[in-house]
Amino acid sequence: MKLRRSGCPINLTLETFGDRWSLIILRDTMFGGQRRSFRSLLTGSIEGIASNILADRLKRLTANGLLARAADPDHKQRVVYTLTEKAIELVPLMVMMGSWGIRHTLPSIELSARAKVLEDGGPRLWADFMDELRYLHLGSPAPAASALAKMQAACEASVLA
Amino acid sequence: MKLRRSGCPINLTLETFGDRWSLIILRDTMFGGQRRSFRSLLTGSIEGIASNILADRLKRLTANGLLARAADPDHKQRVVYTLTEKAIELVPLMVMMGSWGIRHTLPSIELSARAKVLEDGGPRLWADFMDELRYLHLGSPAPAASALAKMQAACEASVLA
Repeated sequence: MKLRRSGCPINLTLETFGDRWSLIILRDTMFGGQRRSFRSLLTGSIEGIASNILADRLKRLTANGLLARAADPDHKQRVVYTLTEKAIELVPLMVMMGSWGIRHTLPSIELSARAKVLEDGGPRLWADFMDELRYLHLGSPAPAASALAKMQAACEASVLA
Repeated sequence: MKLRRSGCPINLTLETFGDRWSLIILRDTMFGGQRRSFRSLLTGSIEGIASNILADRLKRLTANGLLARAADPDHKQRVVYTLTEKAIELVPLMVMMGSWGIRHTLPSIELSARAKVLEDGGPRLWADFMDELRYLHLGSPAPAASALAKMQAACEASVLA
């Protein structure tokens, strides 16, 4: 896809993502809470991503500096994908997509609970979530509280409700 | 494009947009400040959108309830596209894309000025901008101040600077 680039920051952001699948992979890596292997992204995908699409988008996301490849600490021969700082800073955008989605689409109650927690928590919780991702993916110090645990609890409560 | 829908609000949001071109058309309609004809979207596009892509995405955006077709008040035979409330509520998401873009891509100074004004203005200015779009596209009462004029002034100042 060759493009006439305009220099508009919104356009350049869209060009960096690539497409819907790229954002889905970033979402799964963010909310999955840990470094992801090719296999876990493939078999864990609730969208049913095809393996050739996953391989292509992982290459693209790595080339664009949104994901980094590292050796799996438990299986040295295996590669895992980690979020970069650039990708972690997409959290507010993901939150906005979730907020818009709960208002204007018909999402599942369980998956909306996560978006609702992030919306209600505001910029403060997004910052906590980003710190947690920096801990999980970049080796920064562990944050005091886990935003992911808060989202998980809300998901579970919504299923029981 | 047939998809296995997951019910995740982020995924459903991405499905509703469609692709990069759809968001570019929404951006141009939002920041263009008025109802847009096919011709003005085509010839005014800084991304060089092709006419067949524009036609296809306008059909898709209309089907998904993000744009509405109306008769041009000045030329009754001509059709103009207006933003719906659903599309106007994408403003915070556009702002986040712009903010991320000024940090992580290399945008033009002039086009970044607009994103910067929106970022600095915060949720208060986004609400004003949405009210202005409701005035321009939905016939709501005119807002006290124009967010578009503020962005335009910042663009012009950046060129002179």
